[in-house]
Amino acid sequence: MTIPVLNPEGGFRRLQIDFSYDGTNFQGWAKQPNYRTIQGVLEELIGKLVRAKVDCVTAGRTDAGVHATGAVLHVDVPDQEMDIENFAFKLNRILDEDIRIISVREAPEGFHARYSATARHYEYKIADGNRPISPLERHYVADWYRPLDLDLLNAASASLLGTHDFAAFCKWRANATTIRTLKDFSWVRNESGLLVSHICADGFGYNMVRNLVGAAVCVGEKRYELEWIRRVLTEKSRVSDSYVFPSRGLTLAKVDYPDDAKLPAIAQAAWESKLAGEDELE
Amino acid sequence: MTIPVLNPEGGFRRLQIDFSYDGTNFQGWAKQPNYRTIQGVLEELIGKLVRAKVDCVTAGRTDAGVHATGAVLHVDVPDQEMDIENFAFKLNRILDEDIRIISVREAPEGFHARYSATARHYEYKIADGNRPISPLERHYVADWYRPLDLDLLNAASASLLGTHDFAAFCKWRANATTIRTLKDFSWVRNESGLLVSHICADGFGYNMVRNLVGAAVCVGEKRYELEWIRRVLTEKSRVSDSYVFPSRGLTLAKVDYPDDAKLPAIAQAAWESKLAGEDELE
Repeated sequence: MTIPVLNPEGGFRRLQIDFSYDGTNFQGWAKQPNYRTIQGVLEELIGKLVRAKVDCVTAGRTDAGVHATGAVLHVDVPDQEMDIENFAFKLNRILDEDIRIISVREAPEGFHARYSATARHYEYKIADGNRPISPLERHYVADWYRPLDLDLLNAASASLLGTHDFAAFCKWRANATTIRTLKDFSWVRNESGLLVSHICADGFGYNMVRNLVGAAVCVGEKRYELEWIRRVLTEKSRVSDSYVFPSRGLTLAKVDYPDDAKLPAIAQAAWESKLAGEDELE
Repeated sequence: MTIPVLNPEGGFRRLQIDFSYDGTNFQGWAKQPNYRTIQGVLEELIGKLVRAKVDCVTAGRTDAGVHATGAVLHVDVPDQEMDIENFAFKLNRILDEDIRIISVREAPEGFHARYSATARHYEYKIADGNRPISPLERHYVADWYRPLDLDLLNAASASLLGTHDFAAFCKWRANATTIRTLKDFSWVRNESGLLVSHICADGFGYNMVRNLVGAAVCVGEKRYELEWIRRVLTEKSRVSDSYVFPSRGLTLAKVDYPDDAKLPAIAQAAWESKLAGEDELE
């Protein structure tokens, strides 16, 4: 059986594109009239190169101001003579420098950038205790006035790992599941003194990463006891006394896909269950 | 004997300020009417806080577009009650985010940001072979279309180490010495595939770092033999067939000063010889 969405239409071929962007001057991923968005810019310029109207489908539909160093998309283009080797270079020549194509390849059978993805990895950076942010990193780090305790951040974050209904940490959206498997949520202090969090899940609810970071900070600054975060998770209702951290500190670092051979089965399952990534807007 | 420049006038105290900036939107360090410069911005805002006209003296008078993560300046301010602990914080509150104060301290006896400096460390980053530059680093990396050979870059750079007349690599300026001691000029390829050069000397001539990088690239891309760079150095006349690399790839990383106790003697010697950093404009 051929699943419509999961394969290109006749006369088209599917490309997998790895790319990155500085989200500062984009109104997020999703195409919107009169706004500069990542999808909007890419569809316009890819369309220009292949002389067709194209749709880009991505694994991480980031919100305004969020960055990506390891984003992935697929796009179906007319199946005509093309130099795939050279396609990234040609596209980079016409794109502004705040979005870059890392690589382009013929997508393997059954590859769907969104439904095939098994995990998304995000990174969040905080300069705490009024530590000055290096001007060279100023668009990629959020500031926080109180000093944060690394061990408490890690303890709070670890208590959310596993499969749960993360409704308390997701902005509400219709038809969006909030049941997610959080695989990693851990913090380190890097050589510049910044707090860097690695957050990985099968998918994320709307604003979920930035809500998780805000809740961990509530514990890390000793505003709330460690037990509070677990209680919030269990109660499943949005908390009004937590923080939503700003988009500037957030970067989509990587998307995981299974081996090429497993792609068709996994994409089909994900698509059928309609669970997959419907609202991973961060 | 009290050397005038090397000590604050009566009724003034000297502050040492460590700071950093993204040079992209500055017309360099040096104050100029109608241009946004680092010196101009700092003198205006420090002057506002201490309610006096002040002059900032720095170790690395960088050219337009050059960045700094480890710049140092001194400034003499009226010797009145002030909370030095809090001065960096207050200054950062009124500065734009592309310039940040790292720390402020009472300057030790005989400290002169420029004449006391014993070495300047610069870093230069290149994405060679048309490698796409990450959007998050786009203002801090220069691109080069040809692939560069790391071993050849290092061999060419090493052949310039030591004390020489670097006239061939300096833009001409009146009253500026071109005799310098190059202490380090080496390259690595970092985890992102970028070529990163560390360049250290007692001081640098006008445009010297960017000329050195350009000459090393001529060898690294196999346009010229290794012997060529040494011949250029010896002939001492500006070469017209080399490259001057753009300022965006250049960052002042660190300035070395001697131990506090040695400061007065070193500053006096440097000032008397008039050798010190008169033209380290990069």
